[in-house]
Amino acid sequence: MSKIAFIGLGHMGLPMACNLVKAGHEVSGFDLVPSALEQLVAAGGKASNSARDAIEGVQIVVSMLPASRHVEGLYLGDDGLLSYIQAGSLVLECSTIAPDAARKVHAAAAQMGIEMLDAPVSGGTAGAAAGTLTFMTGGAAATLEKAREILAAMGKNIFHAGPAGAGQVAKVCNNQLLAVHMLGTAEAMALGVANGLDPSALAEIMRQSSGGNWSLEKYNPWPGVMENAPASHDYSGGFATELMTKDLGLAQEAAQSTGSSTPMGSLALQLYRLMIKQGKGKLDFSAVQKLFVE
Amino acid sequence: MSKIAFIGLGHMGLPMACNLVKAGHEVSGFDLVPSALEQLVAAGGKASNSARDAIEGVQIVVSMLPASRHVEGLYLGDDGLLSYIQAGSLVLECSTIAPDAARKVHAAAAQMGIEMLDAPVSGGTAGAAAGTLTFMTGGAAATLEKAREILAAMGKNIFHAGPAGAGQVAKVCNNQLLAVHMLGTAEAMALGVANGLDPSALAEIMRQSSGGNWSLEKYNPWPGVMENAPASHDYSGGFATELMTKDLGLAQEAAQSTGSSTPMGSLALQLYRLMIKQGKGKLDFSAVQKLFVE
Amino acid sequence: MSKIAFIGLGHMGLPMACNLVKAGHEVSGFDLVPSALEQLVAAGGKASNSARDAIEGVQIVVSMLPASRHVEGLYLGDDGLLSYIQAGSLVLECSTIAPDAARKVHAAAAQMGIEMLDAPVSGGTAGAAAGTLTFMTGGAAATLEKAREILAAMGKNIFHAGPAGAGQVAKVCNNQLLAVHMLGTAEAMALGVANGLDPSALAEIMRQSSGGNWSLEKYNPWPGVMENAPASHDYSGGFATELMTKDLGLAQEAAQSTGSSTPMGSLALQLYRLMIKQGKGKLDFSAVQKLFVE
Amino acid sequence: MSKIAFIGLGHMGLPMACNLVKAGHEVSGFDLVPSALEQLVAAGGKASNSARDAIEGVQIVVSMLPASRHVEGLYLGDDGLLSYIQAGSLVLECSTIAPDAARKVHAAAAQMGIEMLDAPVSGGTAGAAAGTLTFMTGGAAATLEKAREILAAMGKNIFHAGPAGAGQVAKVCNNQLLAVHMLGTAEAMALGVANGLDPSALAEIMRQSSGGNWSLEKYNPWPGVMENAPASHDYSGGFATELMTKDLGLAQEAAQSTGSSTPMGSLALQLYRLMIKQGKGKLDFSAVQKLFVE
Repeated sequence: MSKIAFIGLGHMGLPMACNLVKAGHEVSGFDLVPSALEQLVAAGGKASNSARDAIEGVQIVVSMLPASRHVEGLYLGDDGLLSYIQAGSLVLECSTIAPDAARKVHAAAAQMGIEMLDAPVSGGTAGAAAGTLTFMTGGAAATLEKAREILAAMGKNIFHAGPAGAGQVAKVCNNQLLAVHMLGTAEAMALGVANGLDPSALAEIMRQSSGGNWSLEKYNPWPGVMENAPASHDYSGGFATELMTKDLGLAQEAAQSTGSSTPMGSLALQLYRLMIKQGKGKLDFSAVQKLFVE
Repeated sequence: MSKIAFIGLGHMGLPMACNLVKAGHEVSGFDLVPSALEQLVAAGGKASNSARDAIEGVQIVVSMLPASRHVEGLYLGDDGLLSYIQAGSLVLECSTIAPDAARKVHAAAAQMGIEMLDAPVSGGTAGAAAGTLTFMTGGAAATLEKAREILAAMGKNIFHAGPAGAGQVAKVCNNQLLAVHMLGTAEAMALGVANGLDPSALAEIMRQSSGGNWSLEKYNPWPGVMENAPASHDYSGGFATELMTKDLGLAQEAAQSTGSSTPMGSLALQLYRLMIKQGKGKLDFSAVQKLFVE
Repeated sequence: MSKIAFIGLGHMGLPMACNLVKAGHEVSGFDLVPSALEQLVAAGGKASNSARDAIEGVQIVVSMLPASRHVEGLYLGDDGLLSYIQAGSLVLECSTIAPDAARKVHAAAAQMGIEMLDAPVSGGTAGAAAGTLTFMTGGAAATLEKAREILAAMGKNIFHAGPAGAGQVAKVCNNQLLAVHMLGTAEAMALGVANGLDPSALAEIMRQSSGGNWSLEKYNPWPGVMENAPASHDYSGGFATELMTKDLGLAQEAAQSTGSSTPMGSLALQLYRLMIKQGKGKLDFSAVQKLFVE
Repeated sequence: MSKIAFIGLGHMGLPMACNLVKAGHEVSGFDLVPSALEQLVAAGGKASNSARDAIEGVQIVVSMLPASRHVEGLYLGDDGLLSYIQAGSLVLECSTIAPDAARKVHAAAAQMGIEMLDAPVSGGTAGAAAGTLTFMTGGAAATLEKAREILAAMGKNIFHAGPAGAGQVAKVCNNQLLAVHMLGTAEAMALGVANGLDPSALAEIMRQSSGGNWSLEKYNPWPGVMENAPASHDYSGGFATELMTKDLGLAQEAAQSTGSSTPMGSLALQLYRLMIKQGKGKLDFSAVQKLFVE
C-alpha cells in the first residue's frame, strides 16, 4: 500500500480520496474547506495544513481542482508544489482543465524528473462515490502502468488517450459530443411529442435505432421516461449545466488553438449559456429539454 | 401465404419485394423501370404493367416511393389507387414522406374502408437485402398485428410509434438525431486528431463513455477506424448525403407545422446542404467528416 | 379616381384601405370582423357583406390576409374570387405568403386574363398608417406601371423585384436578413456591455463603422439607446416576434424548395421560436435582446 | 511636430507610419523585415535596429503587431519595452488583440507612469494608405485628447469606446457584427437568386429596406453587383478571411471571459473556419458567398 497526498477535497475529490483510504492507502489530504478535511479524517484519512504539508514523505500526489488557474497556481512558479515534490514521484492530475494548461504542468514536471498523468474523469459524483469513474489519461504508457492500481481504486474504466495533455483532449471531445447528442435528443423528443408521439414510445424506438446514444440509453431528458434520470427528479443531481458549460468552453479553447471548426459543439455551448442566463445553471445538463418545451 | 402487390421497386423496394417472395408470398410488382421488373421476375415474382394491374385480386399492397408527391399521386385523387383497392384490404406505405402527407392518405384510406400503416424503414439497402430493416409504424395497433407477418419477412425490428402518421414522425425524429450525432462525432474526431490524438484511440474512448452513440458504434466517419464503415471505402455505399438531406428537410417541415425549435437539427440540415453544393451529395452521409478536415 | 375592392381589414389592411379613401378612391371593403368594417365606413369607405359583394363593379382588387392558405382560399378553386373578377382587372395581393403560393395565384389569374402583382409590404402598422410602406412587387413591369398610382397612395418605396412571386422572394430574403442583423446586433450589444462598454457609446461606434445596419440605425434593441425604439418601451409596438417567426418560416420554405443553405437564417428562426416558447411572441422582434442579458 | 517610434511595419503599419511622416512627424520605425524598413526610409522615415533603438529620445510610441503574444512580448516582462520608455510618454497600441491582453499592458504601463490607449483600427489596407482609418480607443479621455492629432494623421473617425481595453472590445463587437451581416447578406443573395431574382435588383431592394447594412452598402458579396467590391475581382484585396477568423476568435475569447452567449457570432466563426479548411483563407472575407452557391 502507498502513501498518497490528495489535494482538493470537493464534491469529486473527497469521495475519490475516501476510496483510496478504503483500498488501504495512507492518504494525507488538503483542502481550504475545514469540513472537507474533517470528513476525510472521519473516513480514516489524515488532514494536512497545506499542500506542502500533505506531500511530506509522499511519492504519489493526486489533485482534483476546479479549473486551469488553480492547477497552474498549485504546481507552477518558483514556489509551486513541483519544486517540493521528490524526483521520481508520480503526479495524477485529475482536474478537467485546458489541454494547454495540462501540457505546461507536464513540461514542468518532466524538468523536475517527476512522472505525471493528466487524468480527467467522467462519471460524476455518483461515479466518484461508487469508485466507478472513467479515467482518460495522457502521458507515458509506462507511467499509466505505475498508476493503474491507484486509479483502479477510484474508477472502473481506465483509458490511455495518448501523450501529455491527451487525457484532457479526450475529455473535452467526449463531453462536447455528449452535449451535442443530449441537445439532439432533447430536440427530437420535443419534436416528436409536439407531433403527437408518446415520449416513452419515441424514446424506445430511437434508442434501438440509428438515433441511439448514451443520453437515450442512460439519461433521457424527458421527465418520466426514465425513473432514475435527473429529468424525472426536477433535473436535480447529475451533472450541472454550469459544469457542462465549463467543459464546452474548454473544447472551444482547444478548437481555437488548432483552428478546428465545430459548428454543433459551439452552438451547444451558446445554448447552454442561454440556460445559465435564464437562471438554470445549477440544474442537471439534461434540463436543456426545457428550452424546447412550452 | 398471401398475394401482395408491391409498388416501387427501387434500391430499397426491389430487395424488400424479393424477401417477400422468398418468404413464400405471391408478389406482383410494378415500377416504371423495366429492368427492376425483370429482376423481380428473376427472383420469382410477377411483373405488372401498372399499379392498377398489380393490385388485381390482391388484398395487401406495399409501396416504396421516393417522396410525398409520388405517394399522394399514387393513392389519392379521383383515379387514385385507393379507388380501386378492395375495402378491407391492407396498405403498407413504406416510403419516407411528410407526416402530413401520410395522414392525408390515411384519411382517404379510412373513408374507403381500407386499413393502412405508414411504415417507413431504417437500415438502408444493406438492411433491405438482408431482411433486417427497422419499421416504424403509424396506425391502429390492430392493423399492425395483421401486418406483422408481412413486415417480419422484410425486417427485424417492428415498432408501433402511434396513430396515423406516427411512423413518419418517429422516422424523421430518429434521422434528425442521427444526423446530429454523426456531425457531433465528426467534429469531435477532427478536434481530437487536430489536438494530437490517435483517431482509433479517441473513437474507442468516446464509444465506451458518455459520448457513445450509434455513429461511433457502427459507422465511424473517420477513414480507417472501422474496416466496414463507408468512411473506410471513400464514403461509398451506405446512406447518401442527399437522402439524409431529404429526411432533415422533412423534419423541418414537421417542426414548422408545430412551431418546434430545433437548433441542432436545422444546423445539421444547412451543413448537409453545403455538402451538396460542394458536389458531395452522392457520398455516404458520414462524409460530413470532410467538412472538418483539411 | 378608381373603384377599389379591399379584402382583409386587419392591423395592416385597414389603414391601407383608409389611405386609398383619403387619396380619393372609392373603396368597398370586406372583413370577417364587423368593427373593422365600421372603421372603414367611418373613414369614408363602403362595407361589403362578402368578398364577392366587394368586387361588384370594380376592376381593382387589393387583398391583405394573414397567410398562404387564406390567400389560396380566397382566390382559387371553382368558387374562388378569380372566377368572379372581370377579365382585364388588376389584383394587388399584398399579403406576405410563400412564393410558391403567390405563383399559383398568378398562374390562375393569368388564365382568367386578370393582371396581378404580388406586392408584400414592409414598414409595419406605423408605415401603413402614415402611407409610407415599402412595396416589393412581382409580376409584369407593365402591370406595375398600371398599379403604381394605387400603391403610391399607400406607400413610399415601390420596388419591382422581378416576375410572378419575386415580390414574396424579395420580402422573405429581406426579412431573413433583418432578423440576422437584429440578432447579431443584440449579441454584439450584450457582449460589449458585459465587457464593460457603455451601450450608447458602443451602439454609436458600430453604427458608424462596418458593423452598421438598419437595426443600429433605426431600431436599437438595447433599452434606452433610442428613445423611440420599441426596446425603450418594453418592446411593445413594432413588429411582433411571432410575425418575424412566420416570415422566417416562409424563408425556410423558399430555401427548401431550392435546396439553399442558410445557416444564419435558420438559426435565427430557431432562436425566435425559443422566444415564443418563453411566452414572448407578442413582444417586438427586437426583444431577442432579452435572450442575451441576465 | 513630434518624434514618434513606430513598431511593426506590416501591411497596415507601414502606410500608417508613412502618413505620420507625411504629416510632418519624425518617425523612427522598427520591423523584423528589412524591406519594410527600406520603404519607410524611402518615404522619409528613419530605420532603427531594434524596438529599443527606435524609442531612443522619443515620447510617443505607436505599435501595430499581429497578435496578443507579440504585443505582450514587446511591452511586458523584465526586459520589455515599457521598462525603457520614459515616464510621461504616450503609447498608442493599434494592434487588434484580446481585451484581456490589452488590459495587462495598460496596467503595466500605468505602473510605469506611461499613458496608453488601446487603439485598434478598421478600414483595412486601403484605409491605412488613404489615412482614413477608424480608431476605436480605450483608456483615459484625457489621453485620447493628447493623442488625437497623431491619430488624425492616420485616420478619419476617432472614437472613445471607454476605459482600458474598451477599444479592443468595441473592435471585436463590431467585427463580429460585420461577419454576421456579411454572412446574412450572402445567404439572402443566394436564396433570392436561387428563387429567380436578379442579384442587383435584390441587392438594391434590401439595401434600401430594413435588411440594409454595411455589406450591402459598400461591399456586396455577389460578383458583379458592385464594380469596386472584392467580389467583382475574384475576392482579392480587401480583408482576408483568415484575419476575420482571427477577430471572431478574439470575440469568442471575450465572450468566454464573461459567459456571453453569441449563437450567431460563434456560428460565423465556425463557417469562416470551414472556408479556411477549403483553402480560401487568403480570399476576402466576402468570399463566404461561395459557400452558398453551387
